[in-house]
Amino acid sequence: MIKVSVMYPNTPGARFDQEYYRDKHMPMVKARMGDNCKSYTVDKGLAGGAPGAPATYIAMCHLFCDSVEAFQAGFMPHVREIMADVPKYTDLTPVLQISEVVVG
Amino acid sequence: MIKVSVMYPNTPGARFDQEYYRDKHMPMVKARMGDNCKSYTVDKGLAGGAPGAPATYIAMCHLFCDSVEAFQAGFMPHVREIMADVPKYTDLTPVLQISEVVVG
Repeated sequence: MIKVSVMYPNTPGARFDQEYYRDKHMPMVKARMGDNCKSYTVDKGLAGGAPGAPATYIAMCHLFCDSVEAFQAGFMPHVREIMADVPKYTDLTPVLQISEVVVG
Repeated sequence: MIKVSVMYPNTPGARFDQEYYRDKHMPMVKARMGDNCKSYTVDKGLAGGAPGAPATYIAMCHLFCDSVEAFQAGFMPHVREIMADVPKYTDLTPVLQISEVVVG
Protein backbone atom coordinates (compact mmCIF):
# COMPACT_ATOMS: atom_id res chain seq x y z
CA MET A 1 0.00 0.00 0.00
CA ILE A 2 1.21 3.50 -0.80
CA LYS A 3 0.04 6.85 0.48
CA VAL A 4 0.05 10.04 -1.55
CA SER A 5 0.24 12.99 0.83
CA VAL A 6 -0.81 16.44 -0.39
CA MET A 7 0.35 19.05 2.12
CA TYR A 8 -0.60 22.74 1.97
CA PRO A 9 2.02 25.03 3.58
CA ASN A 10 0.57 27.30 6.25
CA THR A 11 1.60 30.56 4.56
CA PRO A 12 0.45 33.75 6.30
CA GLY A 13 -2.25 35.52 4.29
CA ALA A 14 -3.02 32.54 2.10
CA ARG A 15 -6.58 31.39 1.47
CA PHE A 16 -7.82 27.92 2.35
CA ASP A 17 -11.49 26.92 2.54
CA GLN A 18 -11.49 23.89 4.85
CA GLU A 19 -15.21 23.21 4.30
CA TYR A 20 -14.97 23.18 0.51
CA TYR A 21 -11.91 20.95 0.70
CA ARG A 22 -13.66 18.46 2.98
CA ASP A 23 -17.15 18.54 1.46
CA LYS A 24 -16.54 19.13 -2.26
CA HIS A 25 -12.96 18.73 -3.46
CA MET A 26 -11.88 15.54 -1.72
CA PRO A 27 -15.16 13.63 -2.34
CA MET A 28 -14.83 14.62 -6.03
CA VAL A 29 -11.26 13.31 -6.17
CA LYS A 30 -12.32 10.02 -4.58
CA ALA A 31 -15.29 9.71 -6.94
CA ARG A 32 -13.11 10.25 -10.02
CA MET A 33 -10.39 7.85 -8.85
CA GLY A 34 -12.86 5.11 -7.96
CA ASP A 35 -11.32 1.90 -6.66
CA ASN A 36 -7.85 3.14 -7.62
CA CYS A 37 -8.10 5.12 -4.38
CA LYS A 38 -8.90 2.72 -1.55
CA SER A 39 -9.55 5.48 1.00
CA TYR A 40 -8.41 8.92 2.01
CA THR A 41 -7.98 11.02 5.11
CA VAL A 42 -8.06 14.78 5.66
CA ASP A 43 -6.20 16.72 8.37
CA LYS A 44 -6.67 20.30 9.46
CA GLY A 45 -3.53 21.86 10.94
CA LEU A 46 -3.90 23.01 14.54
CA ALA A 47 -0.42 23.72 15.90
CA GLY A 48 3.29 23.12 15.49
CA GLY A 49 5.64 21.37 17.85
CA ALA A 50 6.90 24.30 19.92
CA PRO A 51 4.47 26.09 22.28
CA GLY A 52 2.56 28.73 20.30
CA ALA A 53 4.11 27.69 16.97
CA PRO A 54 1.76 27.50 13.99
CA ALA A 55 1.18 24.28 12.09
CA THR A 56 3.61 23.69 9.21
CA TYR A 57 0.67 22.69 7.00
CA ILE A 58 -2.77 24.28 7.11
CA ALA A 59 -4.29 21.11 5.66
CA MET A 60 -3.21 17.72 4.37
CA CYS A 61 -4.87 14.87 2.59
CA HIS A 62 -3.55 11.35 2.22
CA LEU A 63 -4.76 9.09 -0.59
CA PHE A 64 -4.27 5.34 -0.02
CA CYS A 65 -3.67 3.25 -3.14
CA ASP A 66 -2.44 -0.27 -3.83
CA SER A 67 0.51 1.03 -5.85
CA VAL A 68 1.97 4.07 -7.57
CA GLU A 69 0.54 2.67 -10.81
CA ALA A 70 -2.95 2.50 -9.30
CA PHE A 71 -2.65 6.12 -8.16
CA GLN A 72 -1.58 7.23 -11.63
CA ALA A 73 -4.30 5.17 -13.33
CA GLY A 74 -6.92 6.78 -11.11
CA PHE A 75 -5.61 10.32 -10.98
CA MET A 76 -4.09 11.13 -14.36
CA PRO A 77 -7.25 10.77 -16.50
CA HIS A 78 -8.90 13.40 -14.26
CA VAL A 79 -5.92 15.62 -13.48
CA ARG A 80 -7.26 18.54 -15.51
CA GLU A 81 -10.64 18.56 -13.74
CA ILE A 82 -9.06 18.04 -10.33
CA MET A 83 -6.50 20.82 -10.79
CA ALA A 84 -9.17 23.19 -12.11
CA ASP A 85 -11.04 22.75 -8.83
CA VAL A 86 -8.09 23.76 -6.64
CA PRO A 87 -8.50 27.59 -6.99
CA LYS A 88 -12.00 27.21 -5.53
CA TYR A 89 -10.54 26.47 -2.10
CA THR A 90 -6.96 27.76 -2.06
CA ASP A 91 -4.25 29.88 -3.64
CA LEU A 92 -1.54 27.68 -2.13
CA THR A 93 0.71 25.26 -4.01
CA PRO A 94 0.86 21.97 -2.12
CA VAL A 95 3.85 19.78 -1.38
CA LEU A 96 3.26 16.26 -2.68
CA GLN A 97 4.90 13.10 -1.39
CA ILE A 98 4.52 9.40 -2.15
CA SER A 99 5.24 7.09 0.77
CA GLU A 100 5.21 3.39 1.45
CA VAL A 101 2.78 2.54 4.25
CA VAL A 102 5.11 0.70 6.62
CA VAL A 103 2.65 0.54 9.52
CA GLY A 104 -0.95 1.20 8.44
CA MET B 1 -9.59 12.86 17.25
CA ILE B 2 -6.24 14.53 16.73
CA LYS B 3 -3.15 13.36 14.89
CA VAL B 4 0.39 14.21 15.88
CA SER B 5 2.59 13.99 12.80
CA VAL B 6 6.36 13.63 13.23
CA MET B 7 8.06 14.26 9.90
CA TYR B 8 11.78 13.72 9.25
CA PRO B 9 13.17 15.97 6.47
CA ASN B 10 14.91 14.03 3.72
CA THR B 11 18.27 15.76 4.13
CA PRO B 12 21.10 14.43 1.90
CA GLY B 13 23.70 12.60 3.94
CA ALA B 14 21.51 12.21 7.00
CA ARG B 15 21.15 8.90 8.77
CA PHE B 16 17.80 7.16 9.25
CA ASP B 17 17.37 3.51 10.23
CA GLN B 18 13.90 2.60 8.93
CA GLU B 19 13.96 -0.85 10.55
CA TYR B 20 14.85 0.42 14.01
CA TYR B 21 12.18 3.11 13.71
CA ARG B 22 9.50 0.58 12.71
CA ASP B 23 10.52 -2.33 14.94
CA LYS B 24 11.89 -0.66 18.08
CA HIS B 25 11.24 3.07 18.43
CA MET B 26 7.59 3.33 17.44
CA PRO B 27 6.44 0.21 19.36
CA MET B 28 8.23 1.63 22.42
CA VAL B 29 6.44 4.99 22.04
CA LYS B 30 3.07 3.23 21.74
CA ALA B 31 3.82 1.03 24.75
CA ARG B 32 4.75 4.02 26.92
CA MET B 33 1.73 6.08 25.83
CA GLY B 34 -0.71 3.21 26.37
CA ASP B 35 -4.34 4.07 25.68
CA ASN B 36 -3.47 7.74 25.39
CA CYS B 37 -2.33 6.79 21.88
CA LYS B 38 -5.18 5.00 20.11
CA SER B 39 -3.07 3.91 17.16
CA TYR B 40 -0.20 5.02 14.96
CA THR B 41 0.97 4.75 11.39
CA VAL B 42 4.45 4.86 9.86
CA ASP B 43 5.33 6.05 6.34
CA LYS B 44 8.58 5.60 4.45
CA GLY B 45 9.20 8.35 1.87
CA LEU B 46 9.49 7.07 -1.70
CA ALA B 47 9.27 10.09 -4.01
CA GLY B 48 8.22 13.69 -4.38
CA GLY B 49 5.58 15.11 -6.69
CA ALA B 50 7.69 16.01 -9.72
CA PRO B 51 9.21 13.19 -11.80
CA GLY B 52 12.51 12.16 -10.24
CA ALA B 53 12.09 14.46 -7.25
CA PRO B 54 13.02 13.03 -3.85
CA ALA B 55 10.49 12.72 -1.03
CA THR B 56 10.27 15.79 1.21
CA TYR B 57 10.31 13.53 4.28
CA ILE B 58 12.35 10.34 4.57
CA ALA B 59 9.90 9.01 7.16
CA MET B 60 6.80 10.11 9.05
CA CYS B 61 4.77 8.79 11.90
CA HIS B 62 1.28 9.83 12.90
CA LEU B 63 0.01 9.28 16.44
CA PHE B 64 -3.79 9.24 16.83
CA CYS B 65 -5.12 10.49 20.16
CA ASP B 66 -8.51 11.56 21.49
CA SER B 67 -7.25 15.06 22.27
CA VAL B 68 -4.14 17.19 22.67
CA GLU B 69 -4.47 16.62 26.42
CA ALA B 70 -4.45 12.84 25.92
CA PHE B 71 -1.31 13.13 23.78
CA GLN B 72 0.43 15.23 26.42
CA ALA B 73 -0.71 12.91 29.23
CA GLY B 74 0.71 9.93 27.37
CA PHE B 75 3.87 11.47 25.94
CA MET B 76 5.23 13.92 28.48
CA PRO B 77 5.89 11.47 31.37
CA HIS B 78 8.13 9.51 28.95
CA VAL B 79 9.61 12.32 26.88
CA ARG B 80 13.10 11.85 28.28
CA GLU B 81 13.23 8.13 27.47
CA ILE B 82 11.66 8.64 24.04
CA MET B 83 14.02 11.46 23.07
CA ALA B 84 17.04 9.48 24.30
CA ASP B 85 16.10 6.74 21.83
CA VAL B 86 16.07 9.05 18.78
CA PRO B 87 19.87 9.09 18.15
CA LYS B 88 19.71 5.30 17.77
CA TYR B 89 17.93 5.68 14.41
CA THR B 90 18.58 9.20 13.14
CA ASP B 91 20.57 12.42 13.37
CA LEU B 92 17.65 14.40 11.90
CA THR B 93 15.44 16.85 13.76
CA PRO B 94 11.81 16.18 12.89
CA VAL B 95 9.06 18.66 12.07
CA LEU B 96 6.12 18.15 14.41
CA GLN B 97 2.52 19.08 13.69
CA ILE B 98 -0.78 18.59 15.52
CA SER B 99 -3.82 18.26 13.28
CA GLU B 100 -7.52 17.71 13.70
CA VAL B 101 -8.63 14.54 11.93
CA VAL B 102 -11.36 15.94 9.67
CA VAL B 103 -11.82 12.76 7.63
CA GLY B 104 -10.31 9.69 9.29
